Amino acid sequence: MRVGDLDESELLARVLPLLPSEALLGPGDDAAVVAAPDARVVATTDVLVEGRDFRRDWSTGADVGWKAVAQNVADVAAMGATCTGLLVALGLPGDLDVAWVEDFAAGAAQACRALGAVVVGGDLSGASEVVVAVTALGDLAGRAPVLRSGARPGDVVALAGSPGRSAAGLDLLRAGRSRGPGSVPDLLAAHRRPVPPVALGPAAADAGAVALMDVSDGLLRDAGRIAAASGAVLDLHLAGAVLAGCAGALAAATGADAATARSWVLTGGEDHGLLACFPAGARAPEGFRAVGRVLAGAPGVLVDGEPWSGAGVGWDHFRGR
Amino acid sequence: MRVGDLDESELLARVLPLLPSEALLGPGDDAAVVAAPDARVVATTDVLVEGRDFRRDWSTGADVGWKAVAQNVADVAAMGATCTGLLVALGLPGDLDVAWVEDFAAGAAQACRALGAVVVGGDLSGASEVVVAVTALGDLAGRAPVLRSGARPGDVVALAGSPGRSAAGLDLLRAGRSRGPGSVPDLLAAHRRPVPPVALGPAAADAGAVALMDVSDGLLRDAGRIAAASGAVLDLHLAGAVLAGCAGALAAATGADAATARSWVLTGGEDHGLLACFPAGARAPEGFRAVGRVLAGAPGVLVDGEPWSGAGVGWDHFRGR
Repeated sequence: MRVGDLDESELLARVLPLLPSEALLGPGDDAAVVAAPDARVVATTDVLVEGRDFRRDWSTGADVGWKAVAQNVADVAAMGATCTGLLVALGLPGDLDVAWVEDFAAGAAQACRALGAVVVGGDLSGASEVVVAVTALGDLAGRAPVLRSGARPGDVVALAGSPGRSAAGLDLLRAGRSRGPGSVPDLLAAHRRPVPPVALGPAAADAGAVALMDVSDGLLRDAGRIAAASGAVLDLHLAGAVLAGCAGALAAATGADAATARSWVLTGGEDHGLLACFPAGARAPEGFRAVGRVLAGAPGVLVDGEPWSGAGVGWDHFRGR
Repeated sequence: MRVGDLDESELLARVLPLLPSEALLGPGDDAAVVAAPDARVVATTDVLVEGRDFRRDWSTGADVGWKAVAQNVADVAAMGATCTGLLVALGLPGDLDVAWVEDFAAGAAQACRALGAVVVGGDLSGASEVVVAVTALGDLAGRAPVLRSGARPGDVVALAGSPGRSAAGLDLLRAGRSRGPGSVPDLLAAHRRPVPPVALGPAAADAGAVALMDVSDGLLRDAGRIAAASGAVLDLHLAGAVLAGCAGALAAATGADAATARSWVLTGGEDHGLLACFPAGARAPEGFRAVGRVLAGAPGVLVDGEPWSGAGVGWDHFRGR
């Protein structure tokens, strides 16, 4: 059965029961009503477009649903907040299999359950390619939001998550290594179904993080955003145990050379780890590992004290890499 | 200059300054932070897709920006709430003129100013057709949200707005009557830049409205949604002064026959008026006019006491009309 065989209400009737939906008022009226006990609401939106942000031959509908939820919940966590609700808007081609949409909803539901989120509303429209626009809402529970602009010289740069795994998985798919002996299932899973450490966002805020962001476009590019917003230099320790360890593990798992593995670690997007800056005396929550230091100077990013001279600096949504 | 000539940050730098943006934390971080003084937040999202929801040869970028804002603010008003912030996500083809995007932002900004809204965040992505996904947030200021499910037999059905004007404008465009002596500029404007009566949403709630919704898919179809949610019959008085007057005015302005004009009034979408049900004794705010009555019976909509026998019942996003 194709999407075009159903009207909007029939398609909704198939999809909505699959989604966890608890709110003061959930889907079905002109708008949802979501609790905002803090009297402030955190809000973020992301668009995923078929052929650019995902490929239907490389990711199932469930993978896309998972990722759309995960990356938005990660953005809420990166403010120091907890997700209180998601709005999921889909543009769907008429000839798309309804089973793909149901699979998308099932994957979105799995991510919701894994990350403690619910779907409170959405919209369906026709489109000539699959477009997914998710909005996430969050509650700060009295915390100050942790911005990108608070890094100061002397801070420790810390990362929750293992950078480069999604990019390595994507390159395996590009190389046709999606199955068989050359494949690495957990890297493919890292690409298809990232698991952002969402509980560490509020934990980092409580532990005194002065800057925090979701790493969606690559460590170098996103560290550069903290650097630019803070007016400081972020020096990433690629030669240090954590990042070198990540690169080494990727090289060992995939057979890639060291330069490729380092490039995944520094420039690979879509890992959705959390990058934080903590004052030197602060005790970062377990799950964060020191990967660098904030220095004074013209805003920018250094790698082991030097400007990065390898390929690319991360993902750009119009130009690609 | 084309969208593909710029990277995401360059395009943002051109668009963001055009938009009114006041929030606790506006665009530029992982998420926005918006005041929610009521400790609940109203949230709704809508997608517009080029070629389906708008045509670039019939509407300017500014028209599309206006409409995307207006229809989402209308959904917030239809809960009895006031809009506190918008998130605007765009999918843009690389060969799209940057001027179109700037024009879109200018139109969105005009609608924001007209309707008392601000843009607090968003996202940009590549796409093969223009896709606009707007999320609107709102505050209820202590009111109970007005749902679709509260209509009861004996209630008065009241409408703020003049139904059919957008559909008449669209049919003028379809007929090539976009300019010259056969054109009707204010109907074209009603299609391109609807002005939802957003202040009347909270006013209706305060006046005791028991059901309220934004008329986006046509009077019959949307009245049917109130009827279904409320378990009641909505009898629309097409022969009464208000709806007959709307149809008569459309026929006179366009030269259309009476049946066509009645069909615009009953089934034309995108007017974004507010349809409300008030208990018989309530005093509806100025701007609402009685257009029908709620009756007991199997849920559905009647027109002058009879099932509608004219063409169509409104807009469906997958099937069209």
